[in-house]
Amino acid sequence: MPRWEPDGVERLQAAAFELFDEQGFEHTTVAEIAQRAGLTQRTFFNHFADKREVLFGLSSEFQQEIVREIAACADTLPPLDAVVRALQAAADTMFEERRAAVTRRHKIVDANPELQERELSKRAALTDAIAAALHARGLDPEIALLTAGAGMLVQQTAIQRWTQPAESRPLRELLSAALHSLRTTVS
Amino acid sequence: MPRWEPDGVERLQAAAFELFDEQGFEHTTVAEIAQRAGLTQRTFFNHFADKREVLFGLSSEFQQEIVREIAACADTLPPLDAVVRALQAAADTMFEERRAAVTRRHKIVDANPELQERELSKRAALTDAIAAALHARGLDPEIALLTAGAGMLVQQTAIQRWTQPAESRPLRELLSAALHSLRTTVS
Repeated sequence: MPRWEPDGVERLQAAAFELFDEQGFEHTTVAEIAQRAGLTQRTFFNHFADKREVLFGLSSEFQQEIVREIAACADTLPPLDAVVRALQAAADTMFEERRAAVTRRHKIVDANPELQERELSKRAALTDAIAAALHARGLDPEIALLTAGAGMLVQQTAIQRWTQPAESRPLRELLSAALHSLRTTVS
Repeated sequence: MPRWEPDGVERLQAAAFELFDEQGFEHTTVAEIAQRAGLTQRTFFNHFADKREVLFGLSSEFQQEIVREIAACADTLPPLDAVVRALQAAADTMFEERRAAVTRRHKIVDANPELQERELSKRAALTDAIAAALHARGLDPEIALLTAGAGMLVQQTAIQRWTQPAESRPLRELLSAALHSLRTTVS
């Protein structure tokens, strides 16, 4: 049996999100998630270390993608534009097709203080990784951290809008709009 | 005996910071802090709920000060300038005289993942409070959150610099410099 079954991962994630929504994150067990997905607990643990990882499992993949994209950007591109371009690349490959799942995930995380804390930690780690990638391109460490922080503001603003029911524009476009808003706000 | 003894608070804090530095936050007890300060455990608990509060006890006072200052700013002042002006007022009244203590506190928090998580939560709460204060001034909620996030970037950049041994400029001046750096970075 191959370790990586995209279908299994998707089914487990969908089942977990449904249950977290219905009965809360705290009151949902791995056994219930596996049962709802029609899979075994063993399959669950082949893919996720615990139920929290269903919510945060993609964050290291996201971070790697962003760092790779920043490194691949032309040196002539201003640093904040490089960051937003990397976020847009990840928006296309990792987010755009999963709008409903990401929206549901946000609701679940927002409803639970422990998950919120974990989200903040992941966000801080991503900020540091972006700053390191910018520093590797020759940017002064302080400016690198400031630019990374600005990029994360753009990402959060765009995701916040993208997960609103009334919003239909793609995340890529909302990232551009958020960058524009930040420029207006800060200028 | 009055409940508020500034001298007692200062002594307990200084003793706690010394001990956290010497033997780590985890391995320090309230009994040791009180003993080092030459005070009783009862006095400690008159001022702080637990040893963590010695590090985070000022954050709600800081938040109230910032929110009050933003509300007091002239309506004509651009929102981000209002936030930075509020941070400068708090820098003068709450930070400037406590440079050594704040620097030591930062080292302690940075060395402990649990304290870092708490720091991130407090920072998120402050961001939300600033955004609410800006929204109360009539700013659109999304722009209010973006402006609050930008203000927090300025604060973090300035504090980071201010707590470096080689840095001697006052925090107020470093806040202005950080705002200038952010403007250059984002433009």
